[in-house]
Amino acid sequence: MMNKQKNLHALFKPNSIAVLGASRDEKKIGHIVLRNILESGFEGKIFAVNPNAQSVLDIECFSDYVSLPETPDLAVVALPAAVAVSLLESIAQKGTKNIVMFSAGFKEAGLAGAALEADLQAAAKKYDLNILGPNCLGFASTLCNVNATFSQAENRAGNLRFMSQSGALASGIFDWAKQQQIGFSEFITLGNKAVIHENDILEYWLNQKTKNNTEVGLSNYQPIGMYLESISEGAYFLELAKKIAKQHPIFILKPGHSKHAQQAIQSHTGSMAGDDKVQRTAFAEAGILYCEGVEDMFDMAKIFSWENAPRGPRVAIVSNAGGPAVLSTDALEKEGLQLAVLSKKTIAKLEENLPRAANVLNPVDVLGDALSARYHEAIEDVLAEKTVDALLVIVTPQIMTEIEDTAELIGTLSAKYAKPVVCSFMGGSAIEAGEHVLNKYKIPSFRFPERAVKALSVMWHWQQRRHTLSIENTKYTLGLFAKSKIHKIEKIIQTVKTENKVLSLIEAEDVLKVCGIKTPPSEAVRTMSEAWQFGQKHGLPFVLKVSSPMLIHKTEAQAVFTNIYTEADLKKIWARIVATVKKLPKNSDYVVQAQKQIESGLELIAGIKNDANFGNVMMFGAGGILAELIGDSNLVIAPITEKNCVSLLEKSKAFTLLRGFRGHKPYAIKKLVSMLIKFGWLAEAVPYFNEMTINPIIVTATEAWAVDPRFILKQK
Amino acid sequence: MMNKQKNLHALFKPNSIAVLGASRDEKKIGHIVLRNILESGFEGKIFAVNPNAQSVLDIECFSDYVSLPETPDLAVVALPAAVAVSLLESIAQKGTKNIVMFSAGFKEAGLAGAALEADLQAAAKKYDLNILGPNCLGFASTLCNVNATFSQAENRAGNLRFMSQSGALASGIFDWAKQQQIGFSEFITLGNKAVIHENDILEYWLNQKTKNNTEVGLSNYQPIGMYLESISEGAYFLELAKKIAKQHPIFILKPGHSKHAQQAIQSHTGSMAGDDKVQRTAFAEAGILYCEGVEDMFDMAKIFSWENAPRGPRVAIVSNAGGPAVLSTDALEKEGLQLAVLSKKTIAKLEENLPRAANVLNPVDVLGDALSARYHEAIEDVLAEKTVDALLVIVTPQIMTEIEDTAELIGTLSAKYAKPVVCSFMGGSAIEAGEHVLNKYKIPSFRFPERAVKALSVMWHWQQRRHTLSIENTKYTLGLFAKSKIHKIEKIIQTVKTENKVLSLIEAEDVLKVCGIKTPPSEAVRTMSEAWQFGQKHGLPFVLKVSSPMLIHKTEAQAVFTNIYTEADLKKIWARIVATVKKLPKNSDYVVQAQKQIESGLELIAGIKNDANFGNVMMFGAGGILAELIGDSNLVIAPITEKNCVSLLEKSKAFTLLRGFRGHKPYAIKKLVSMLIKFGWLAEAVPYFNEMTINPIIVTATEAWAVDPRFILKQK
Repeated sequence: MMNKQKNLHALFKPNSIAVLGASRDEKKIGHIVLRNILESGFEGKIFAVNPNAQSVLDIECFSDYVSLPETPDLAVVALPAAVAVSLLESIAQKGTKNIVMFSAGFKEAGLAGAALEADLQAAAKKYDLNILGPNCLGFASTLCNVNATFSQAENRAGNLRFMSQSGALASGIFDWAKQQQIGFSEFITLGNKAVIHENDILEYWLNQKTKNNTEVGLSNYQPIGMYLESISEGAYFLELAKKIAKQHPIFILKPGHSKHAQQAIQSHTGSMAGDDKVQRTAFAEAGILYCEGVEDMFDMAKIFSWENAPRGPRVAIVSNAGGPAVLSTDALEKEGLQLAVLSKKTIAKLEENLPRAANVLNPVDVLGDALSARYHEAIEDVLAEKTVDALLVIVTPQIMTEIEDTAELIGTLSAKYAKPVVCSFMGGSAIEAGEHVLNKYKIPSFRFPERAVKALSVMWHWQQRRHTLSIENTKYTLGLFAKSKIHKIEKIIQTVKTENKVLSLIEAEDVLKVCGIKTPPSEAVRTMSEAWQFGQKHGLPFVLKVSSPMLIHKTEAQAVFTNIYTEADLKKIWARIVATVKKLPKNSDYVVQAQKQIESGLELIAGIKNDANFGNVMMFGAGGILAELIGDSNLVIAPITEKNCVSLLEKSKAFTLLRGFRGHKPYAIKKLVSMLIKFGWLAEAVPYFNEMTINPIIVTATEAWAVDPRFILKQK
Repeated sequence: MMNKQKNLHALFKPNSIAVLGASRDEKKIGHIVLRNILESGFEGKIFAVNPNAQSVLDIECFSDYVSLPETPDLAVVALPAAVAVSLLESIAQKGTKNIVMFSAGFKEAGLAGAALEADLQAAAKKYDLNILGPNCLGFASTLCNVNATFSQAENRAGNLRFMSQSGALASGIFDWAKQQQIGFSEFITLGNKAVIHENDILEYWLNQKTKNNTEVGLSNYQPIGMYLESISEGAYFLELAKKIAKQHPIFILKPGHSKHAQQAIQSHTGSMAGDDKVQRTAFAEAGILYCEGVEDMFDMAKIFSWENAPRGPRVAIVSNAGGPAVLSTDALEKEGLQLAVLSKKTIAKLEENLPRAANVLNPVDVLGDALSARYHEAIEDVLAEKTVDALLVIVTPQIMTEIEDTAELIGTLSAKYAKPVVCSFMGGSAIEAGEHVLNKYKIPSFRFPERAVKALSVMWHWQQRRHTLSIENTKYTLGLFAKSKIHKIEKIIQTVKTENKVLSLIEAEDVLKVCGIKTPPSEAVRTMSEAWQFGQKHGLPFVLKVSSPMLIHKTEAQAVFTNIYTEADLKKIWARIVATVKKLPKNSDYVVQAQKQIESGLELIAGIKNDANFGNVMMFGAGGILAELIGDSNLVIAPITEKNCVSLLEKSKAFTLLRGFRGHKPYAIKKLVSMLIKFGWLAEAVPYFNEMTINPIIVTATEAWAVDPRFILKQK
């Protein structure tokens, strides 16, 4: 499934670069990128290829790639799509393995472009080329001082690593970073991802020897930011990200495609495990921080570049304004942080150092007329306090406020104490000079205090999460992987008519039985008398169901009839079954199935869908009336392990009921867990299903029954 | 309950102002405020009072207030608290009715200050003075060109009205507004609210004749922003706000005090109707827009100042970057807006005007290399489209992007089409010049596209909401207001021992019976045989309960015993009752009560609590197991009308069950509604209860029963 690992070191740390399409026209990409490479302080050799020019920007031009005096590590191609593809062979023959391709006009530009992209991919495979793009903005690196983009990326060193599928968004990030004085280690734009994918970049970063940050003020991390519109191989992506997330913060901004998700709903599982929810769950499980929007992404980039995560959730606030301090206190609570409780000693120090009217309990109010000296006292007292894990400083621009001096002292004190410090200088023009000073000291500042609190909270939650991340494997201990079982299931599936995407009830029950999942006794019945015989044999009451590929939602379609206790009940119901069957399209397949009715149990739902990005996703929660009322939809993402099944059950609201609620006897939880594990194994071992739903599972005090399975095959 | 309406016109539009404590020291408040008044272009007379100076800022100083040559409309007091209070008499004697008091050192500064504030309030009452503050920042108005604050408020005319309980936050808002070029009509800071409250200001604004905005680019509204830390008379506040909200957007930022709310929990109702939830519900019902934080407040201030609400939810997006456009599409859906569907004609126009690679379906992608001319074509085509109610323009700074020109043309086109236009110029330094141009044209711009979408959405939701706002009254049509009933209830309450805050079960049931609310037959029993007689008389099964002021959560305390069918059941349970009673503190009051058990009904909860801010709040939702699982807590705020009771029921999740879910027979909804109305009447008519909970109400197919009422009296 996953590609061979690519060696991208020479691509992103080349010793020599050739620009194909180097142009003398200052507005052309081929000019801009050459200028950027020259101006970025790149120390390797730089070549230019242009058959129509002697030189560009004082760099001698060669008429074609093969004429170059040596083999460049990297070829940067700033030429139209068709030309670019036609040159790949000569680039490869020269021995260059790494290519950055800016050219647009590929997959994104219709059928002809897609064909061109296929040619590009074929060439890449044939010659073993690493191609970044096409249709990308290139990359910039301060590890080897090269700006191989045609954008105004600033050449400021830093610890932030970033990849973006959108070049336009990258331009916005560059502009923002410049203003905020945030430096990058590497910034890579992916474009069409024809050859190099996000996973290649993550592999490269995972294996990268990260040097210690030498610059004062940077955090201990090499944070990774990502803007991705698609993820090619989700399972591997999550595995790589999880490995990274234990060491370095990794955050993602990804559109949710929620509309698309709604269109694709095929079943209950589909609707309860929408794309957006699957995505969020997947990221959360892998320790990837999820950005709700561009603002979140910018805030995370800033705080993780400059601050280490707090050792605990206890935050102190120092403010010259009561209102914003109270708002921040609310925000702390909302975001799962705590207001630090100051010790008596610290309170005494604050009382000594601050005016009588000041509030010396956290949040510390230094009052509106506070000059920088008073901020200094308060901040130092609070940072020295053991019970404080992080500090938020709020400054509102009062007429006497010493904005820049206050920012300076925050910078100095922050360097003295190894605790994260964030600021909110609230206002407009007046506070900008202060923000500039804070940026210089690499103190993350946020225009709104709630944003500062949220950023702190993201750090703290990552800090807690990273230690619990572990790489699971899919080993099942129930001996379920027996090949004979898989063969039996495959045989059942083979009998399903090719035009039917959905297994009949009886076929689905047979699949479950092979897995060792209990289903209530059931039989196909052709007549009323056969039905009554079933009831006599298996006990009353019983259920009759009409099963047909044409019926999707059984209850609504008058296709499930419960509570048949007597022959009179049966007679009434049989008439309704006849009516239901009559309504089916002519020549429809259908079966009338009798099933023993499981009584006095709790209804639950379990489902597994095969997500296009992340593979199998298991959903579990309360069923029946509760499903609609409480929305108890809980997810785990592949690999669906035994451990995952247990935690899925435990995090459901239904678990409260299962354990025995308010004196009720507990239900057969072990049997249920065993069912979920077997169900998970089915999905992992037999990859033919697009969606599988058991709705309901009925759990009694002694047994867990799969009452109504609905299995949808993948499109062939 | 409410104060006499104050006449604040002369306060906020004075013809003459005297500054007490005018100072020559440039750093003193008494200097700054005089300079601000002088520099703000105030056309009335200005006086200064200072016994130790000849003149300040070329204004002649008088030695005391009575020496002033005439009676100023407004006295601005910049003196220490004690001095300020001592001068009130002479100010009043001179005939001045309106005072702005900056002085700190009142209620906020401990007991001595509180006493001083009481003196101030007494003087205000005695002399009928309007006092703004104390401990406030003053006010600024462009209606009469006066900046009577000691802050750097800019004197820019606009339509925004604002009140802030925090002066420090006001300084931040001034600074922000200056940068964003947002003008105010009036900006009032409230300080300690010793005399003038938020309701006085709202009354003043409600009765204000709002002139049409003459300035190009302003919206048709006179929006009102509020930062409040407390609300004094919540019910009246909501009534005023509702009247305003039909005409003008009104938004609030208010800390939630969520910790405080948690401490005050006394019962189930308390925990299910936390302060924050009550507050949000109250604001929503009154049409007040709720700010989640300072950022929301700034965004609302900007968009309502400059744009009219859209006529519909259909938004077009024009962007030079695909990624941010997709993110904005996600945001539209999340915020309840829609992506406009463009007509064939518009699509054809766009195809003609844009390059082939551009996306001409909404979101319209003008591509990364778009110059301002291309933006012009796309924006004009889209704004002319009938299916478009609002437009979002996204600009990312590509190397060729004409940022300022693009901003200019957006300004020009926006003036041409009467549709709201919002922008997101994404980046840092490079896009600032563009934002400046947008501010000049009064086009709301937001650094992040999701914020722009949220701001549009708030407008649209207000637009829908305002038309549905109606002033309810509390008239009950069930003849419940009979005085005799109130007397009966008062008699019951009078018998409750003064040391008990909680009514006994039997007392509470008696109260309910007076209201005509059905309770199951019940009796106090002293012996097992009395209990059995009760069962024989009223039918089996029955319930036994131990009721005592010492028992708060009955179930947990082993004090409710259900399902007594036989004498053997009774014997077992009686032994447990004896055990429970033994565990009570010595000499505790207790009653053992037998109650008929209501079977096969649905459990619900209703509660009413008296909220400190907003008066009676009724809570209703599913009970029993469901209560814990689904959190079905729905609120209405006083006045609790019949209409409110019905809508409360209808918005509950329990309503799905009550109507008859999945073939189940409907429950006695009419009886339940009638019970809620009577319960609401009880709270409105008999103001002795702090909290009343009926948990559970059991509704059967034919009747609604109040099974377990718990009534807590107000502290005396």
